Amino acid sequence: MSETIFEYLSVAAAIIGILFAGYLTSWVLRRPMGTPRMQEISAAIQEGAGAYLNRQYRTIAIVGIIIVIVLFFSLGAVTALGFVVGAVFSGLCGYVGMNVAVRSNVRVGEAAKKGLPYALLVAFKGGAVTGLMCVSLGLLGVAGMFTLFHDPNSLVGLGFGASLISVFARLGGGIYTKSADVGADLVGKVEAGIPEDDPRNPAVIADNVGDNVGDCAGMAADLFETYAITTIGAMLLGEIYFHGRLMYMIYPLVLGGIAIIATIIGTYFVRLSQGQEIMTGLYKGLFASAILALIGFYPATTYIFGDNKFFWDALVGVVVTLIIVFITDYYTSKRFRPVKTIAQASQSGHATNIIAGLAVAMEASIWPVFTIVAGILISYVIGGVYGVGIACMAMLSMTGIVVAIDSYGPITDNAGGIAEMAELPPEIRAITDPLDAVGNTTKAVTKGYAIGSAGLVAIVLFSAYTQEIERVRQAAGIIDKLTFMVQDPWVLAGLLIGGALPFIFCALAMGAVGKAAYEVVNEVRRQFREIPGLMEGKAKPEYGRCVDIVTKRALKEMMAPGIIPVAAPLLVGFLLGAKALGGMLMGVIITGFFLAVMLTAGGGAWDNAKKYIEEGQYGGKGTPAHAAAVTGDTVGDPCKDTAGPAINPMIKVVNIVALLIVGYVALIVR
Amino acid sequence: MSETIFEYLSVAAAIIGILFAGYLTSWVLRRPMGTPRMQEISAAIQEGAGAYLNRQYRTIAIVGIIIVIVLFFSLGAVTALGFVVGAVFSGLCGYVGMNVAVRSNVRVGEAAKKGLPYALLVAFKGGAVTGLMCVSLGLLGVAGMFTLFHDPNSLVGLGFGASLISVFARLGGGIYTKSADVGADLVGKVEAGIPEDDPRNPAVIADNVGDNVGDCAGMAADLFETYAITTIGAMLLGEIYFHGRLMYMIYPLVLGGIAIIATIIGTYFVRLSQGQEIMTGLYKGLFASAILALIGFYPATTYIFGDNKFFWDALVGVVVTLIIVFITDYYTSKRFRPVKTIAQASQSGHATNIIAGLAVAMEASIWPVFTIVAGILISYVIGGVYGVGIACMAMLSMTGIVVAIDSYGPITDNAGGIAEMAELPPEIRAITDPLDAVGNTTKAVTKGYAIGSAGLVAIVLFSAYTQEIERVRQAAGIIDKLTFMVQDPWVLAGLLIGGALPFIFCALAMGAVGKAAYEVVNEVRRQFREIPGLMEGKAKPEYGRCVDIVTKRALKEMMAPGIIPVAAPLLVGFLLGAKALGGMLMGVIITGFFLAVMLTAGGGAWDNAKKYIEEGQYGGKGTPAHAAAVTGDTVGDPCKDTAGPAINPMIKVVNIVALLIVGYVALIVR
Repeated sequence: MSETIFEYLSVAAAIIGILFAGYLTSWVLRRPMGTPRMQEISAAIQEGAGAYLNRQYRTIAIVGIIIVIVLFFSLGAVTALGFVVGAVFSGLCGYVGMNVAVRSNVRVGEAAKKGLPYALLVAFKGGAVTGLMCVSLGLLGVAGMFTLFHDPNSLVGLGFGASLISVFARLGGGIYTKSADVGADLVGKVEAGIPEDDPRNPAVIADNVGDNVGDCAGMAADLFETYAITTIGAMLLGEIYFHGRLMYMIYPLVLGGIAIIATIIGTYFVRLSQGQEIMTGLYKGLFASAILALIGFYPATTYIFGDNKFFWDALVGVVVTLIIVFITDYYTSKRFRPVKTIAQASQSGHATNIIAGLAVAMEASIWPVFTIVAGILISYVIGGVYGVGIACMAMLSMTGIVVAIDSYGPITDNAGGIAEMAELPPEIRAITDPLDAVGNTTKAVTKGYAIGSAGLVAIVLFSAYTQEIERVRQAAGIIDKLTFMVQDPWVLAGLLIGGALPFIFCALAMGAVGKAAYEVVNEVRRQFREIPGLMEGKAKPEYGRCVDIVTKRALKEMMAPGIIPVAAPLLVGFLLGAKALGGMLMGVIITGFFLAVMLTAGGGAWDNAKKYIEEGQYGGKGTPAHAAAVTGDTVGDPCKDTAGPAINPMIKVVNIVALLIVGYVALIVR
Repeated sequence: MSETIFEYLSVAAAIIGILFAGYLTSWVLRRPMGTPRMQEISAAIQEGAGAYLNRQYRTIAIVGIIIVIVLFFSLGAVTALGFVVGAVFSGLCGYVGMNVAVRSNVRVGEAAKKGLPYALLVAFKGGAVTGLMCVSLGLLGVAGMFTLFHDPNSLVGLGFGASLISVFARLGGGIYTKSADVGADLVGKVEAGIPEDDPRNPAVIADNVGDNVGDCAGMAADLFETYAITTIGAMLLGEIYFHGRLMYMIYPLVLGGIAIIATIIGTYFVRLSQGQEIMTGLYKGLFASAILALIGFYPATTYIFGDNKFFWDALVGVVVTLIIVFITDYYTSKRFRPVKTIAQASQSGHATNIIAGLAVAMEASIWPVFTIVAGILISYVIGGVYGVGIACMAMLSMTGIVVAIDSYGPITDNAGGIAEMAELPPEIRAITDPLDAVGNTTKAVTKGYAIGSAGLVAIVLFSAYTQEIERVRQAAGIIDKLTFMVQDPWVLAGLLIGGALPFIFCALAMGAVGKAAYEVVNEVRRQFREIPGLMEGKAKPEYGRCVDIVTKRALKEMMAPGIIPVAAPLLVGFLLGAKALGGMLMGVIITGFFLAVMLTAGGGAWDNAKKYIEEGQYGGKGTPAHAAAVTGDTVGDPCKDTAGPAINPMIKVVNIVALLIVGYVALIVR
């Protein structure tokens, strides 16, 4: 039974990953915490983060319980159990990652006293916990469920749980962080005249919590979901195309396990020599992990299949990852033309900044698509549809290191805030600031990477969808295959309706930020008015109130956009039938992909164009060019942190819900 | 030979339309021209418009001659002749329409002395010339070529000629008008400190010419193209699905002829009672034309086919038109929530104005899509794919009245400018201003209408594409049909590449506006420096130079985006094969549709939000809210007048080029 051994090895790799994350956590926690003032501020952020997570999980639990009951009675116990595992693991991933991050920030502030390379090391190790939790919990969940049940339905349930939590986490976190940000700035800076990150501002903790909530917890849930869905998708293809040959379902798990070990070793390659570009230091870890993973993939592939065909598919996936990382780096880093173009356009005002930013954003969406297209075609030619799944799995096997490279960003962002609030010398800020700027790029990279996988996952899940339709139709005695031809009016209708979903979703998400920010403004004004001695620094503001309000409001506002990806496939499937639903699955990918990359890359470019000017270009801070760049940055905020990143899990939910209801709609053909 | 009679009747209706356009022209030209100062300004605009058209046609002629030669040797004389007719008629349509518009503007300024209803009447009649020329020349070209040759290839050639000119006209006109606008403002208002629309500004005429060049000539070419392609598409479906039964090819021409007569009568219903909403007055003409057309369609349909099935398809098309008009009105008019939301958001600054505008723009793109989807499905269920073609034809048969309602906009815009320059009393401006604001909405309506048709046309041209592939394959002895299934990696690759085209196209078009505006700024500075007595009003600026430079630059900058829709199908077709090319045809529609509506509706909403504030809301002119609204308006400019409207003809060129090369790529299947 060599299959069983491989299953156990995968689970073992996942457990090693979790243990290593535990080791990293204890390493980070042993770093010194700095002055009492720094610790006080950090504690406030921790308190706020706790308040948010409690409220979020309470709300989602209600939705989750309802869905579990529906799943139990409509699709059975195993699917319902899968949903629970997916949801709980996703929540756990965000919870652990964020809790380590909010404890790392103050230690990075203290580490900065020893110089940039050491600060990067502490921040990176803190972020690497999140990265390892994503892949290890992902693999543990999928491999564990599979080892226990060998039932594909449990996996689809798991994917649904992970995706649904992820949509909520991305939307809620995104609305939270941006409304807290805007609310804190509008009242604190503009009305009360106190500086940014001032601890007297009741919303300042919510603002700092927001960075963790959105960029850390939300991102972790998103990437956990992407990783889990991809693994499940590749396994389903193994089941579909090589029915009865279990190794084809287990092979993706093997790749995942190898990549976790490669990632653990890869983290040791992230080192910065004095004077080296920060991005170069991070890239060393990425390259090392990728090369080590490939070195492991080759013998595993030849041992399992007796030939190396699928290794080349895995290579395609890893190369696609690297290319997408470089493209996003190019479009969002201060070092290259696009960001400089936006900064230059800021000289002639707000409008030209926005126009240049929109042009860059549109351009940025094109090359990742061409990369994905090339990836799909090459991997398909090498290994058929299953080969596309393997490329996809290999691409996502890099999640651990990609998230690690990203997650240090919000940690240093917070560290900079703490340094400012604790009145540390400016040298500290001079170390955290450049780290933070690179963090903007890595943030965009992760989002581009996650959505990039959606193109590949789409083809995988669509195959599962059509396969399931055929099964149901054959069971009903229908012989001719259902085809999804693009020129069929029902398919075209589905394509267009699917194409509309990301637009409705983004319009609602961006509108929600505006509404939630308004409520924050009112609460901050109230505290300034009603708490005596607050402005004089004699009384502590009620940070928890602000956090609670933002949480409540964010969770309320996310409901409408969050319901779309669940309701749309139900409506289209039952009203317009299986063909239109199939078209919708593709339509949502096509526009969703472009919109997501455009919004996230554009937002990152706007942010760094502002930072580029703040470094002294075009007159620096206080000039009209800087004011225009601030406008661009603010416009980019809900694009890159609320609407854009939530598109990826939304696409997955649409696909998973379609897979769940396919048994009921397969015979509805107009 | 009842077919021949219907062919002749269609041609006759087209000729009646042209004669009526001639009558309207002479009616407008008989109106008084106002003061010598007004005439002087108007003459300068006419001179500029002439300079532009000469240069544009010279440039396009070079491209056109090359294409004619290529077509002649690759696809034969009839296709080449069709191309010439399409190109020349498209040019003629823009030329006549614009020449009447530049002569109407001054007369509307004078008519405004008699009050708003009379000013509207003169402006509307001037604009109606363009509307009638679009449909009459369109029908004359298509029906004429068909009557002469009865060869579908001549029609495809005609469609290609019309589309290609239209892309150039939209791009060139769009880059022209927005670069002149920005250039005139930056040097004139900011540097030289002279008021807007001041005749001393060398670019002010180019700016006023731009309104005609973009909103009149560019729009006319675009709608001529849309009308011609739709008619041709419906006829091709008749040929495909009812081969050998000529009446199915002629029926679309009959609908077109009836609608021209209905439009002529409908123009007499556009009347405004004192105190009535302007939009209501315009809607009366639209409703009258629609109802009269339907009254004509019914007996014609039952006479031709012996039953009324296709009448219901035609009804669907007309209803879709009305719904799209109302949706666009809702999202871009000052009377409704969306524009008011943007105006309100302007109070908290530039960034919130842009965020609110983006949210409105995204939302605005959704409902037209759902309308089109419903239209496709209902018309398909009633009459099959040919029924979709008939719905499409009926929808576009309203082009005459829709364009008439739109074209009065740039005329009143110019009239307002002339009134300002000629220092007419403020009462005149108080009449032209509200007319102009409604013009913003009608402009967006026409663009939404044109792109709305693209969804229907897509299905039509795609059917022709697949049909032709089957013909070639059968001729080569291949029996099994080529299918375009969405989950096929080659089709998916095509869908994604096609989806990328509108984004590349828009990024280039928006970047081009920036570059061209820069050159205008330099020329205006030079004239101020080198022409003695210019600032004192003693010397005339060289308006022609500015116009010439903008023309040259616009035509140069439009080449890169203009080449994309021609090159992309060639590359994809020959490199990736017929399946990927098929996918691309659908992909370009899906993202193109959303992007086009988003950009044009968003731009219109931003513009009217500014006008709403200028009416005194939120403090009116000179407030920070107004400054923020101006930013939104400027951002919206290249969106709504350059990139957005050029997407519609771009989609058509991609489709037509695919149809032209299908004979060569049909056997390339990967």
